[in-house]
Amino acid sequence: MAVYTEITDDDLAGFLAGYDLGRALSCKGIAEGVENSNYLLRTERGTFILTLYEKRTREEDLPFFLGLMQHLAARGITCPQPVKARDGGALGRIAGRPATIVTFLDGVWVKRPGVSHCRQVGEALAALHDAGADFAIPRANALTVGDWRPLFELSKPRADEVLPGLAAEIEAELDHLEAHWPRDLPRGVIHADLFCDNVFFLGGQLSGLIDFYFACNDFLAYDLAICLNAWCFEPDHAFNATKGRAMLSGYLAKRPLSEAETAALPLLARGSAMRFLLTRLYDWLTTPEGALVKKKDPLEYLRKLRFHRGVASIAAYGLPPEDYAI
Amino acid sequence: MAVYTEITDDDLAGFLAGYDLGRALSCKGIAEGVENSNYLLRTERGTFILTLYEKRTREEDLPFFLGLMQHLAARGITCPQPVKARDGGALGRIAGRPATIVTFLDGVWVKRPGVSHCRQVGEALAALHDAGADFAIPRANALTVGDWRPLFELSKPRADEVLPGLAAEIEAELDHLEAHWPRDLPRGVIHADLFCDNVFFLGGQLSGLIDFYFACNDFLAYDLAICLNAWCFEPDHAFNATKGRAMLSGYLAKRPLSEAETAALPLLARGSAMRFLLTRLYDWLTTPEGALVKKKDPLEYLRKLRFHRGVASIAAYGLPPEDYAI
Repeated sequence: MAVYTEITDDDLAGFLAGYDLGRALSCKGIAEGVENSNYLLRTERGTFILTLYEKRTREEDLPFFLGLMQHLAARGITCPQPVKARDGGALGRIAGRPATIVTFLDGVWVKRPGVSHCRQVGEALAALHDAGADFAIPRANALTVGDWRPLFELSKPRADEVLPGLAAEIEAELDHLEAHWPRDLPRGVIHADLFCDNVFFLGGQLSGLIDFYFACNDFLAYDLAICLNAWCFEPDHAFNATKGRAMLSGYLAKRPLSEAETAALPLLARGSAMRFLLTRLYDWLTTPEGALVKKKDPLEYLRKLRFHRGVASIAAYGLPPEDYAI
Repeated sequence: MAVYTEITDDDLAGFLAGYDLGRALSCKGIAEGVENSNYLLRTERGTFILTLYEKRTREEDLPFFLGLMQHLAARGITCPQPVKARDGGALGRIAGRPATIVTFLDGVWVKRPGVSHCRQVGEALAALHDAGADFAIPRANALTVGDWRPLFELSKPRADEVLPGLAAEIEAELDHLEAHWPRDLPRGVIHADLFCDNVFFLGGQLSGLIDFYFACNDFLAYDLAICLNAWCFEPDHAFNATKGRAMLSGYLAKRPLSEAETAALPLLARGSAMRFLLTRLYDWLTTPEGALVKKKDPLEYLRKLRFHRGVASIAAYGLPPEDYAI
């Protein structure tokens, strides 16, 4: 939940004067996104999302994010589109913050995804990877294997408050991941945060993808590993191989995995689990008690990490060998 | 800012099945209201607000609030209207909470109201008082003079942490208010919380009133005193008599004040300042540090209280005697 910056009616009227959207009919802060302030804006021309970028989003990255959304939409991916101001730019400034207006996407995110949702997410992820292939602006992943240990150092002194032995377990896992992380898998633009709340559905059909503010260049199969973690575990922490199979089949129907990607998937899934374990652990230890932002349980991702540690091949994710033979 | 209860897509679909609104196109928690969870809901039939009532709103009061909004709208007051379910009821249940869908009002609230806004609020308040005159359901004010001392007792031990001497100043003021509070002024339905964020404007014209969840029966002039406090002070804490005059003139144009009401207004304004001082003081001392809900400064209302303590007559609010002579 966000909305950190308050905007006044005067701020808004001044900002909208630079656009061809008519006047504001309403503007309400919405409880979505954790990095930025988002407003649902209705004007005489329609419904939009107004985003104010807070400190954790670097202003120099905004051309990447905005350009990517335009690039993907031009290639058939349904995602929010930056609205251009009268001066042709998509990046403005309101209440002292960089700000954009993007189109509003209909859809509702599913809290308890089923098999069909997982298949569609697999398909959409492959389509996103294809569509992003020729996007020209680069952006390094700021949360990849080399960044995890420095991030962990910030939480390490207090990690065992969350679970006795946690610090040692993370250190051993980091040793393994750093030693074995792949170097030469197919790379491209990845979403890097395609959790359930970033995928909209209408009537059971995937209707759009949102929140590209972690998107970057990295291994495409790592994005798939993130989605397996985000979508295919049950509330009781069991991996649902039927959902895994659906997601992988959906992905493979649009983009085949190489042998190296297939072999690396369990390790990528461990790495993905580590990345979210570490950011959640940090937030868990630093977010004040009672803050309205809902703290996400870091141990959910420790359990996922442990599951993947026991996985020998992609077959454990529900996909029989004949389905992915290259 | 609110949104305490999360609702799933399944909860929402089940709830909407009881209404003739089509399916949900989107549903986003909005950062408005502090007592309840509010969602901006778009369905195939339009845009609505879905409210889930949290613990601080008593379920037995809901027929008063919902009935009042219908009653006022039928008499020309623009306010949200409860949408009836197929079974004819306006009060349902979702995710374990009482819930209603109300119509969406266009408009933006003004952060820095001008003279014209104040005049229009005065007119709208008088119109609300007239329209509420024949509303049949009673609801006592839970935050009137007799409730202030018990509320203060909860904060008293720590009040001087906020300002040295604050506890003694409040006690002396409570003694005065309890001894002099009027007993026989004209009564009726009051909004009781008509702050700037509860009044919408479009193109400079008042377009609607929202948030009736503090509405109750009390002195009508007390509601006017609340509005003088909420709208007519400048950020530097000075009372703006031009705005005061505009608000009072706007009110008087629709509903004359009796001599007793006119005479009582400075005391009612002191009481209104005390009421908000006390709830803000309590929240200030009990809301955890770092919570995303924005704490409101109790001392803003101490300053207002002190101003009214020095007021001898309604003339100090900007209205020359010839304007309100009965």
